[in-house]
Amino acid sequence: MPDSKEPQPPRNWPQNHPSGLDDVSRRYRREGDKAADFVVTENFEQFNQIDDVFRRSQWDDSIRTENSEQFYRSHVLPKPRKGDGFTQRDFAFRNASWTLANIFSDRGEEEGRREGFLDPLDPYFPKAEQKIEVEDPTRIAREIKNICKFFGAHIVGITNIDKRWHYQNRYDLKNQGDRPNDLPDGLTNVIVIGHAMDYDLVQTYPSALAGASCGSGYSHEAASVVQISQYIRNLGYEAVSSMNDTALAVPYAIKAGLGEYGRNQLVITPEFGPRVRFSKIFTDLPMALDQPKKFGITEFCNICERCADACPPKAIPRGQPTEFGPNKSSIRGVVKWTADCEKCFGYWARMGSDCAICMRVCPFNKDFSKWYYRLARNLAGTRLRKLILVLDSRLKLNKRVKPSGWWGKQGD
Amino acid sequence: MPDSKEPQPPRNWPQNHPSGLDDVSRRYRREGDKAADFVVTENFEQFNQIDDVFRRSQWDDSIRTENSEQFYRSHVLPKPRKGDGFTQRDFAFRNASWTLANIFSDRGEEEGRREGFLDPLDPYFPKAEQKIEVEDPTRIAREIKNICKFFGAHIVGITNIDKRWHYQNRYDLKNQGDRPNDLPDGLTNVIVIGHAMDYDLVQTYPSALAGASCGSGYSHEAASVVQISQYIRNLGYEAVSSMNDTALAVPYAIKAGLGEYGRNQLVITPEFGPRVRFSKIFTDLPMALDQPKKFGITEFCNICERCADACPPKAIPRGQPTEFGPNKSSIRGVVKWTADCEKCFGYWARMGSDCAICMRVCPFNKDFSKWYYRLARNLAGTRLRKLILVLDSRLKLNKRVKPSGWWGKQGD
Repeated sequence: MPDSKEPQPPRNWPQNHPSGLDDVSRRYRREGDKAADFVVTENFEQFNQIDDVFRRSQWDDSIRTENSEQFYRSHVLPKPRKGDGFTQRDFAFRNASWTLANIFSDRGEEEGRREGFLDPLDPYFPKAEQKIEVEDPTRIAREIKNICKFFGAHIVGITNIDKRWHYQNRYDLKNQGDRPNDLPDGLTNVIVIGHAMDYDLVQTYPSALAGASCGSGYSHEAASVVQISQYIRNLGYEAVSSMNDTALAVPYAIKAGLGEYGRNQLVITPEFGPRVRFSKIFTDLPMALDQPKKFGITEFCNICERCADACPPKAIPRGQPTEFGPNKSSIRGVVKWTADCEKCFGYWARMGSDCAICMRVCPFNKDFSKWYYRLARNLAGTRLRKLILVLDSRLKLNKRVKPSGWWGKQGD
Repeated sequence: MPDSKEPQPPRNWPQNHPSGLDDVSRRYRREGDKAADFVVTENFEQFNQIDDVFRRSQWDDSIRTENSEQFYRSHVLPKPRKGDGFTQRDFAFRNASWTLANIFSDRGEEEGRREGFLDPLDPYFPKAEQKIEVEDPTRIAREIKNICKFFGAHIVGITNIDKRWHYQNRYDLKNQGDRPNDLPDGLTNVIVIGHAMDYDLVQTYPSALAGASCGSGYSHEAASVVQISQYIRNLGYEAVSSMNDTALAVPYAIKAGLGEYGRNQLVITPEFGPRVRFSKIFTDLPMALDQPKKFGITEFCNICERCADACPPKAIPRGQPTEFGPNKSSIRGVVKWTADCEKCFGYWARMGSDCAICMRVCPFNKDFSKWYYRLARNLAGTRLRKLILVLDSRLKLNKRVKPSGWWGKQGD
């Protein structure tokens, strides 16, 4: 997002601004916003989880439909059909891939909780009484990142807590209303953990089969964060395991230097492009913080609208970033590309599985273990970006792979 | 084990033999035993889980000591000490690595169950009403193996159920006694799943740090098997997720062609040597079966006693395989190298963490991604085995790595 658009703080910022921000967070702008390309205006409001389109599909009859109900139900009781990618085997695999995440999210359902979606994942064991001594924050940051990778993380960044990106309230499943978005006192840092989604499966979007890249992402995340946060508690520090609950992952991933924001609403990373799921661990362990990193995504997305072109319900914006989204399921007062979540989720519900065509068609969705894609990625961050975009389009590198083709490979 | 030792079936095999074998399994010898190098005698008895040394540490005062109690307790409330590899950080990491396995094993504790240790892991959702059609058992076997790998397995083999290797009874934690080792009717096959243990951590045995290679192995296993078995149930077939519960993993891994039995009581695999943990899925999904594979381990172990030399409590046997172990914690009537589990576990309890020195010092414990170790492995299966053993000893390739050295790498 261009710096010229960055607004100045208003002169008379009210002390009792309705945003629900605490004392420290009351000012809408923060040091470091420029480095992260965050353009936050005086209309900023913390997002309330109840307005998330998935939550609205539970309480808002303009979103909840027969299709949306079957979409959720299909994760345990699918209705397979004949189309390639939607057979019993496709749903069987997609649903199996969610198992681990489901086991966690089901644990507190009776109390209106859903771990990893509405609520942090419960700690297995409380923190140790004895704290280890942290002498060198840079060294412990490196060590923690390696431990995260041991437990399954693909990329890791560390940043400080910024309450602007936390939900005003959590959503309570039982009473279908707000619930305080509380965290233990004294937390200072966020470890942002990225898990790459499976490249070959993502190439089959849209399909129920492709949804296994999403489900297994969630399952990996759940497994990783409960173990990483237990490690930190065992060192005598507080650690809260968070997936989609508690706070927005996207600004935290950007702040932690893991990638840049793209037109397709995804954080584009140098390692895996847009094919990354993020989770977070809130902690008071002192660690050296990472800085946002740019590698030309904003400039590239300015000239590329491939995700907008490919989106079946036309939910992805063209043109320049804007301050407000098309409806209440988007955060207000942040200048950015904002999709129409109602259109997006409506398509998921009609199709009967999650969609990430915008992820598949992104020119940065490549297997960067190959040197020529790394070269192209690096050139895409220079003035040659237009050439790279044209070449990428000509070569049709992001064509959908047939689900039956994916299955063929498994049996051969 | 040499074929010449293979006994003949007795002429008057009693119908009411006390082994608890079902009709099909009443005969102690089976077709396929020779291929698997299984030498089963007329003294064969199914092993009863209550006699497992870990179970005995709960009910048998000759095994349960102050040390053994602290060994178990240390997995949540460790007593760190000054020695390298036994500090708070080492226990913190080891214990965190167990988290996922613990979450599963704790679920049924009130009913005397321990999923993954005494009982199979509960299914997340029952099997689908509609069964997929299996036209080609070879093809579905390949497909299932690839799905297993997607869900985290490193190696996979398939064999048929052989009740000789199932526990006579499960152990019930609550009443500290037997409980029927039941499985659903009609199961025919076992998918044997291997997860490699972390090479660098294994090199630090003995230490609490090294225990993270074991804990993370269990956690990976739990995550994989619940998802794989859910996939099979979603295809309309029965699938029971099993780790250490229900049956002995070692004979199943050998039968399924994943490796050969070693003097150190471990299955030595071509891919990861002895550094593999095994879990099992019992199913009625029809699949092509694998055959046992030999690559010279028996012959190598015949001339190598490095594990026996290195074992601090001298629990590993020298010389030739025998029919009986030194105490009731070993299966009876199978001619094999059998360790003294009482001595072995006694050392764990005194040290305060699990030990796998016998795994570390094994000449087959190498990183086989390196070509020269693959070459040496292949030569170790030929008449050059003695040369390889001497070279391996001279080069001191399996020396212990200092735990502080491992930590140093994480922070650098």
